[in-house]
Amino acid sequence: MPELRRDPISGRWVIVAPDRARRPLPGSGTAPSRENCPFCAGHESETPDEILALRPPGGGGPNTPGWQVRVVPNRFPALSASGPDKRQNVGVYRTRGGVGVHEVIIESPDHHVSLTQLTPEAVEQVLSVFRERLESHRRRTDLHYALLFKNVGLEAGASIEHTHSQIMGTRILPGVIGEEWKLARREWRARRRCLLCEMIRLDASDGRRMVVATDSFVAICPFASRFPLEVWIVPTSHESDFDAMSENQIDSLAPVLRDVLGRVERVMGRPSYNLVLHTAPFRRRGDDSFHWHIEVMPRLGQAAGFEWGSGLFVNPLTPEDAAARLRDGDAQDTGAV
Amino acid sequence: MPELRRDPISGRWVIVAPDRARRPLPGSGTAPSRENCPFCAGHESETPDEILALRPPGGGGPNTPGWQVRVVPNRFPALSASGPDKRQNVGVYRTRGGVGVHEVIIESPDHHVSLTQLTPEAVEQVLSVFRERLESHRRRTDLHYALLFKNVGLEAGASIEHTHSQIMGTRILPGVIGEEWKLARREWRARRRCLLCEMIRLDASDGRRMVVATDSFVAICPFASRFPLEVWIVPTSHESDFDAMSENQIDSLAPVLRDVLGRVERVMGRPSYNLVLHTAPFRRRGDDSFHWHIEVMPRLGQAAGFEWGSGLFVNPLTPEDAAARLRDGDAQDTGAV
Repeated sequence: MPELRRDPISGRWVIVAPDRARRPLPGSGTAPSRENCPFCAGHESETPDEILALRPPGGGGPNTPGWQVRVVPNRFPALSASGPDKRQNVGVYRTRGGVGVHEVIIESPDHHVSLTQLTPEAVEQVLSVFRERLESHRRRTDLHYALLFKNVGLEAGASIEHTHSQIMGTRILPGVIGEEWKLARREWRARRRCLLCEMIRLDASDGRRMVVATDSFVAICPFASRFPLEVWIVPTSHESDFDAMSENQIDSLAPVLRDVLGRVERVMGRPSYNLVLHTAPFRRRGDDSFHWHIEVMPRLGQAAGFEWGSGLFVNPLTPEDAAARLRDGDAQDTGAV
Repeated sequence: MPELRRDPISGRWVIVAPDRARRPLPGSGTAPSRENCPFCAGHESETPDEILALRPPGGGGPNTPGWQVRVVPNRFPALSASGPDKRQNVGVYRTRGGVGVHEVIIESPDHHVSLTQLTPEAVEQVLSVFRERLESHRRRTDLHYALLFKNVGLEAGASIEHTHSQIMGTRILPGVIGEEWKLARREWRARRRCLLCEMIRLDASDGRRMVVATDSFVAICPFASRFPLEVWIVPTSHESDFDAMSENQIDSLAPVLRDVLGRVERVMGRPSYNLVLHTAPFRRRGDDSFHWHIEVMPRLGQAAGFEWGSGLFVNPLTPEDAAARLRDGDAQDTGAV
């Protein structure tokens, strides 16, 4: 059973999950290929039983073909679905049972390798499933957070190429989200304003870091981008929870997300990125200072181990140049960076 | 000229350094090979002029062969050696001039690809150069920190295979070091004790996470390891500054470092890791709560973008199992993980 452990030196929590080592890794010869992909329609028996599936009227029964979007438990979960939440302190060491959620959202019954290959309507369905799962996890009283993310491409750690996302629901707040919330709250209390609202206001008036702008969403290369071609998608109105989105907002987000990922893929020459949804912590006592957004972190092959180990990022591409390339990336492949 | 930028949402500082993009990257066809390695003896003119070189009595003049360890400015520096420290605030955005230090420490005149190929005496010389450079940067009144690190192997982002380390001296404190110092200071004030002293005391009595132990240094797989085979080298006595080490301590550290890296390489089947020295911040008003140590983060190919993007690490190898493998790794190759 997995275990949560806190590093006393850095304050970081880590999930120690030995069973994850059984996961077939890309390049190991045991990773599924297009021919035996467990996420394709017709292979439903190769995944754990589905938690949810979108089916058109007359679509088949559970765990049979006919679905459009399908949610299943991760076969090699980093967290256990049940078990005691054993808490243990030994000196400076703190441990908790690794109980939580680890779901996979299969975004298409066909073997597409990118969300950009889906129709805009299919992307809307994917987003509405994201919303449903986050809503559902938020109702659980034991979870502090549900982290939605997407690994695309070998360099980004994807072990299955069929387009999918994952959700990890945890009884702790992931460190990066906790730190963001702290800064957001402090600014909200001190100046009655949201940092991200300020940021997109400055970027709209400056223009150089803007990639896509609609009434409801903007995509920007953030002022202090860590990675070349890093891009954030931000709702223009101050909203804390992704899952509070209306149908109309989902209909507006779908084409923006599809467009932005398409630009990243065309400029990179291949799809390879991590996407992380930053939505507000579940337990926040009425505090609405957090502004949800999506962070897309392209993986351009330069290993960033040093940067992550030190907290000091070196980015060789200015966000202004990155945005210019992505703005130009709407028509065709503009070559590798 | 490079620029420091602070992300208002996360508080992270980033170095935006467009000139770094000119750096030849591994796999790009322009990266130096063994045949035209600029770090080998006889190729001194292919690097910027040396800052320091260890030469035996009668060794040649500056920038000629005869040296044992050689320090040169990075040819594609992430920070500029001089220039105005322009500070600029535009709304929530903060910017500073990218002025600082970016040095390369060439650890051998021969084309060795790992510190483990050097004699113990040569490793002592390397460590004494580390100490000299850190001491020298500490004396500068403009720097807040000098970060010493080592990227080994393609997966770890090394663009030159010839064994070397780097130092980046900055006018800001790298985030990871700042966070550690905060926790160390808090514990020191609240309980008059050091977290890392407590950690190695627990690990010594437990034994399962111990890799190597001498009177002066221990190597442990940390309780909340982020990565499989992560290992830290820690002085057994509470010392804040790496560069306060005595000759005797350097003589004790050299064989431990060489031994630990050798174990990591043998268990991995190849050398590929990031090494980061965590030494105390330069400006700390007499506070000695920080305990210096070396963190070795092996790169096993699974991209960790999601983990870094969220702050939630999933480690499939328990530190206890990792330490057992590394303890067994003294004799011969024990196969890939």
